Amino acid sequence: MSKGTVVLAYSGGLDTSCILVWLKEQGYDVIAYLANIGQDEDFDAARKKAERLGAKKVFIEDLRAEFVEEFIWPSVQASAIYEDRYLLGTSIARPCIARRQVQIAQKECAQFVSHGATGKVSVCAQCTCSLPESTVHVQVSRPVHLELAILGSEMGMAKHGIPVPVTPKAPWSMDANLMHISHAPSDLYLMTKNPEQSPNTPDMLEMEFKSGKPIKVSHVTDGTTKDTPLEIFLYLNEVGGKHGVGRIDIVENRFIGMKSRGIYETPGGTILHHAHLDIEAFTMDREVRRIKQGLGIKFSELLYNGFWYSPECEYVRHCIAKSQENVEGKVQLSVFKGNVNILGRESPKSLYNEELVSMDVQGEYNPCDASGFIRINAVRLREHHRLQGLNQ
Amino acid sequence: MSKGTVVLAYSGGLDTSCILVWLKEQGYDVIAYLANIGQDEDFDAARKKAERLGAKKVFIEDLRAEFVEEFIWPSVQASAIYEDRYLLGTSIARPCIARRQVQIAQKECAQFVSHGATGKVSVCAQCTCSLPESTVHVQVSRPVHLELAILGSEMGMAKHGIPVPVTPKAPWSMDANLMHISHAPSDLYLMTKNPEQSPNTPDMLEMEFKSGKPIKVSHVTDGTTKDTPLEIFLYLNEVGGKHGVGRIDIVENRFIGMKSRGIYETPGGTILHHAHLDIEAFTMDREVRRIKQGLGIKFSELLYNGFWYSPECEYVRHCIAKSQENVEGKVQLSVFKGNVNILGRESPKSLYNEELVSMDVQGEYNPCDASGFIRINAVRLREHHRLQGLNQ
Amino acid sequence: MSKGTVVLAYSGGLDTSCILVWLKEQGYDVIAYLANIGQDEDFDAARKKAERLGAKKVFIEDLRAEFVEEFIWPSVQASAIYEDRYLLGTSIARPCIARRQVQIAQKECAQFVSHGATGKVSVCAQCTCSLPESTVHVQVSRPVHLELAILGSEMGMAKHGIPVPVTPKAPWSMDANLMHISHAPSDLYLMTKNPEQSPNTPDMLEMEFKSGKPIKVSHVTDGTTKDTPLEIFLYLNEVGGKHGVGRIDIVENRFIGMKSRGIYETPGGTILHHAHLDIEAFTMDREVRRIKQGLGIKFSELLYNGFWYSPECEYVRHCIAKSQENVEGKVQLSVFKGNVNILGRESPKSLYNEELVSMDVQGEYNPCDASGFIRINAVRLREHHRLQGLNQ
Amino acid sequence: MSKGTVVLAYSGGLDTSCILVWLKEQGYDVIAYLANIGQDEDFDAARKKAERLGAKKVFIEDLRAEFVEEFIWPSVQASAIYEDRYLLGTSIARPCIARRQVQIAQKECAQFVSHGATGKVSVCAQCTCSLPESTVHVQVSRPVHLELAILGSEMGMAKHGIPVPVTPKAPWSMDANLMHISHAPSDLYLMTKNPEQSPNTPDMLEMEFKSGKPIKVSHVTDGTTKDTPLEIFLYLNEVGGKHGVGRIDIVENRFIGMKSRGIYETPGGTILHHAHLDIEAFTMDREVRRIKQGLGIKFSELLYNGFWYSPECEYVRHCIAKSQENVEGKVQLSVFKGNVNILGRESPKSLYNEELVSMDVQGEYNPCDASGFIRINAVRLREHHRLQGLNQ
Repeated sequence: MSKGTVVLAYSGGLDTSCILVWLKEQGYDVIAYLANIGQDEDFDAARKKAERLGAKKVFIEDLRAEFVEEFIWPSVQASAIYEDRYLLGTSIARPCIARRQVQIAQKECAQFVSHGATGKVSVCAQCTCSLPESTVHVQVSRPVHLELAILGSEMGMAKHGIPVPVTPKAPWSMDANLMHISHAPSDLYLMTKNPEQSPNTPDMLEMEFKSGKPIKVSHVTDGTTKDTPLEIFLYLNEVGGKHGVGRIDIVENRFIGMKSRGIYETPGGTILHHAHLDIEAFTMDREVRRIKQGLGIKFSELLYNGFWYSPECEYVRHCIAKSQENVEGKVQLSVFKGNVNILGRESPKSLYNEELVSMDVQGEYNPCDASGFIRINAVRLREHHRLQGLNQ
Repeated sequence: MSKGTVVLAYSGGLDTSCILVWLKEQGYDVIAYLANIGQDEDFDAARKKAERLGAKKVFIEDLRAEFVEEFIWPSVQASAIYEDRYLLGTSIARPCIARRQVQIAQKECAQFVSHGATGKVSVCAQCTCSLPESTVHVQVSRPVHLELAILGSEMGMAKHGIPVPVTPKAPWSMDANLMHISHAPSDLYLMTKNPEQSPNTPDMLEMEFKSGKPIKVSHVTDGTTKDTPLEIFLYLNEVGGKHGVGRIDIVENRFIGMKSRGIYETPGGTILHHAHLDIEAFTMDREVRRIKQGLGIKFSELLYNGFWYSPECEYVRHCIAKSQENVEGKVQLSVFKGNVNILGRESPKSLYNEELVSMDVQGEYNPCDASGFIRINAVRLREHHRLQGLNQ
Repeated sequence: MSKGTVVLAYSGGLDTSCILVWLKEQGYDVIAYLANIGQDEDFDAARKKAERLGAKKVFIEDLRAEFVEEFIWPSVQASAIYEDRYLLGTSIARPCIARRQVQIAQKECAQFVSHGATGKVSVCAQCTCSLPESTVHVQVSRPVHLELAILGSEMGMAKHGIPVPVTPKAPWSMDANLMHISHAPSDLYLMTKNPEQSPNTPDMLEMEFKSGKPIKVSHVTDGTTKDTPLEIFLYLNEVGGKHGVGRIDIVENRFIGMKSRGIYETPGGTILHHAHLDIEAFTMDREVRRIKQGLGIKFSELLYNGFWYSPECEYVRHCIAKSQENVEGKVQLSVFKGNVNILGRESPKSLYNEELVSMDVQGEYNPCDASGFIRINAVRLREHHRLQGLNQ
Repeated sequence: MSKGTVVLAYSGGLDTSCILVWLKEQGYDVIAYLANIGQDEDFDAARKKAERLGAKKVFIEDLRAEFVEEFIWPSVQASAIYEDRYLLGTSIARPCIARRQVQIAQKECAQFVSHGATGKVSVCAQCTCSLPESTVHVQVSRPVHLELAILGSEMGMAKHGIPVPVTPKAPWSMDANLMHISHAPSDLYLMTKNPEQSPNTPDMLEMEFKSGKPIKVSHVTDGTTKDTPLEIFLYLNEVGGKHGVGRIDIVENRFIGMKSRGIYETPGGTILHHAHLDIEAFTMDREVRRIKQGLGIKFSELLYNGFWYSPECEYVRHCIAKSQENVEGKVQLSVFKGNVNILGRESPKSLYNEELVSMDVQGEYNPCDASGFIRINAVRLREHHRLQGLNQ
């Protein structure tokens, strides 16, 4: 008799193949679920492999459009960046993948969800934590799967004639999606050209934003235009990749408390990060921006740590979205040899007032204003220095 | 009879020449003070001009070494950056210049200090606010100078036969120092090559840090080595400039509340910013880093707004310096076509533990740990979702 | 010929009477505006006085209900408190008063608004800064009024036979409204009994909240019930006042940079502050609360500094209101001898789960979870200590 | 053969007695360790009981003075308060207890430490996380103890004839120390009188601080004076307790993510909290205070969550201590019927300048300053409103 049905996040690779077999052997019915989030994968081959290994059903789901609109766009609005450098390409994909997995579990009346993350805690934390509200009622998410998965990956291979790789497993694993590829140090870059070999002439783009989200990208000289989220993002990946944009090699702090080296390619995400920063600075009040900056840092930590579906992350996303209402306009930029150079910007909502900038010549405030402003500001400082003098 | 002595921050240019003349005409004795903070200037010619215009004394002070050690280094430690993009090259110079001006005023028993900032409030705020403690006792800093200066710059020119420029004054002014050059949109770049014309092969450098401060830079292939603050910084400017590093075109929020376009070149500062970020992430505890990140944002705002000598900025600098005690080690990087690419890092104080990273294979914590960790974390989230369910 | 019409915020007292006369003398038509925000005032007498002094029109506006609903309630939601102690009773009233003043100016086609704050910068900043968006178009708000007002208050008295007080003006002035009274040290308390003379038996109240706002208060024993904002607040003032609740004597930091002593009575506001803190802690997720706490501190600073109508304050109010959606339920409390004691709370939205609290006995997570949780948390700490050991 | 030596944090109560017996039965040598942190306990009886149950050695350590100086004082400096209400009396004691436990383990060459916290994760996290640096080298702290302890508490009682309580265990446990007592709802209060029965006349105290730490307390009328940390704190407990100060009934958010009711008595700590807030506001620069306030909130979270010995908590304590250098002076206060009323304060380091407060009459800054200050501040707001108008 079946112990129940498991929806397994299946990659087509060795680990999750082992888990699939092992879960079956333990008496579970297994539904294989493979999310297409833009990785380079032979989905048909993966489907056949899963069926051959005994999956009762196989779901291959194209999540690319919702990945861009519902997960990448909010991260762009937030200027999400972890520890000042990492654009969170792996982290952004997880809640997108997990959400569909749970939806399938509900539809198929599965009691369990499972995935192949071998002890990679942050992955798991994500998975457990990120179940959307709706699913909790049907009790799908018993984390029982975790031990199964872990045992599976280590024991299953030999038992089932799945060839065990000769070299010990590296601490890195490649993780690829529409947003980025994460690498081992010795890997070949896949999304981006080496800037040393990239073209010697820049491409000029114009990015258009509304409510802090990209709504159009145009190539200034060849006239190419994209205006759906997925197309915009694919095109930015193409242009950024061609010019070697978005490679980084960093050491980052993982959730569970250790430092970890990460090598990432994020071409389109890098262009968007810079363009959005620019249009935001152009259209957002200075003090609102400061508050939003703090919320963006918080959002980035939550995203990195796997808390997308937490109440605090929902709250922060709401507040960030609110801040973006006037973030609207066009940014001109060039992409060249790994660089994204902002060339200009325009906006109907701009707070930039050229007349105001030059008002020191004959302006709306006069020298006496400036003097008073300074004098009042100085009251506190003078008191401080007076006291320091008295006490020396 | 003299109304007293004014120490005038003199640039050699039109504005401050007018102020000099005007101050004399108003009955003040004028001491001209010209700080060498690395700008491209004919200091001898400036001295002669000041003397010719009637300055009682002229002080030309080489502040470059203290500018690097006492002002740029703390900003590097802080990862000081304004609104995520501007490395604060103008702001960092001001407290350095103002400090010496006040010291001269004290030594020369001057009653006033003055400068040529025509209504540029932030400059003035800096000047008034940034007087070091010691000087307040002798009451040097009456902001009376401000009105004088402002009136001077607008009225003085015609009266004294100093030729008035035909075109109305641009809202931009070029500001140059060791750290950066700030530009008008139509200016020629001076410190950096255009990446399109820069060399086709990268230069590889190794930066060495101790307590978060650069202590050595070496060129990996040609063996050049620099190990004093000023030499290090000049060399980084040279290499960065050669490869077109550190150009930005931004809109920033000024202290007085308007948006302003800024075009900056900061070659050496940009290299240092990236190298320091890397060695800091490699050696600093994650949670200390988060706290320090917040303090660095605060420091950047204070610096931008002219509050270097405020009690809060002194406090923040102390706390940031404390955080840097273990920020020590070497960073390898390449500089190429506007990019600073981190290649690797090493440190005796590293918290990076390669064994730990791979511990999911056979590690110090076991799958059960991970599972427990996740389950405990999930308690709060499950409660939240339970409640959401109840209330739907 | 008239220089235009000024809407003068008129208190009926000496200062604003002088300003009224002086403004007329300068050639302005004056509309006197007196806001009823709950202060103890003979409004009829004030009207007559203003008319006698030459006001073209007199507006006496009862703003009490909107003061409670639109200004006090958001402050309660924010747990607004300045420097950990001051409940901001003066600050909350200003944007309420200023808004109506500007509305009257628009309706009456006045070109100016004026008020009697003699150099009290924070008051003025409030007034100038707090003009709602709509009014800027008709250019009502030239701060010209400020100098008028200031000159008026100092010069006007003698000229017009208004008796000048013999004693020099105290640095304190009493400021009273529905929310609080601010005092000079030697004043008699007006809203609250001395706890030493207050009743020897407590009153028990039950406060009901929805979306973080009070919607009902009931006296547990005598059955009194109030359920409109103004009535609720008046009743809490009555009960709090009877028991000596809400007296403080503090030194606070003023916006312009000096320290200032403040003595305040805020009976109803103090009860609400405690009751709201309690229901909020009971119903809000821990991590959302942390974020909201930071926003509340920001809100308090903005409010204190007169920036209610700034973009950042609008933004923060929106975010805080969002956080309050589930802050709903009843709090039981006793009021006695200056104390507000929380006795209990209940809520349909509570995240408090008594079973969960005792789950260590036979709970949803088991000892192994706890152990794993601790072990994972300890990874970072052990690495830190390992390094410290290596470097000693 | 012994499995090794365990240093058991022994309370003399049922739980830890069971653990002691169970550990022995499992083959461990047990050293019982009982910290005197001010709880009401018969230490001699506890020693005898531990010996009778088979402890190899018994350490009873009077930690009261170091508890006050090294743990309570830094918390007072930090204005440590959790979720705006709880003074952290339980949390502050743990790192003090754990430190000595580890020191004993090292001195006695014990391999393990253990305690009786039955699944109360936060307790355990504290214990594991809070081991000072020095001890990690000798590998004392394997959290193996945890399972032992937990199993012990549930299974040991029956086996060893220790009477099992008839009623199921309450989710609350009383926790008492010098700083506070934590209660179950039905408990009798032990440290504080009911304000309804407390004296009808207040006691007046004068607290003296240096570097933010209490250095003396005097009774204004009866002349009692205390000037060592332990005596000061005991005396404040006595006076506060006599007047019913420091009782709270709250719901708080626990580290592991659930809400928990807490009822606390903290008489002396409450007096100190208010007195320190007052002298700090009186002597600290406004902007330094804001930064320190944020650090204090962080410190409170770390303390609550058991991270006293973490790098971030060490860092935050350092920064907070730095902020306290000028927090010096005397605070007069009355204690009465549950209230702590600040009556006045004085300080050689005060930034309070009575002349400055009244400077609007004839002051150091003039009306024009104020006007300029306001006008400059308004630049940003006017731009914002202009834009809002354009876009409506």
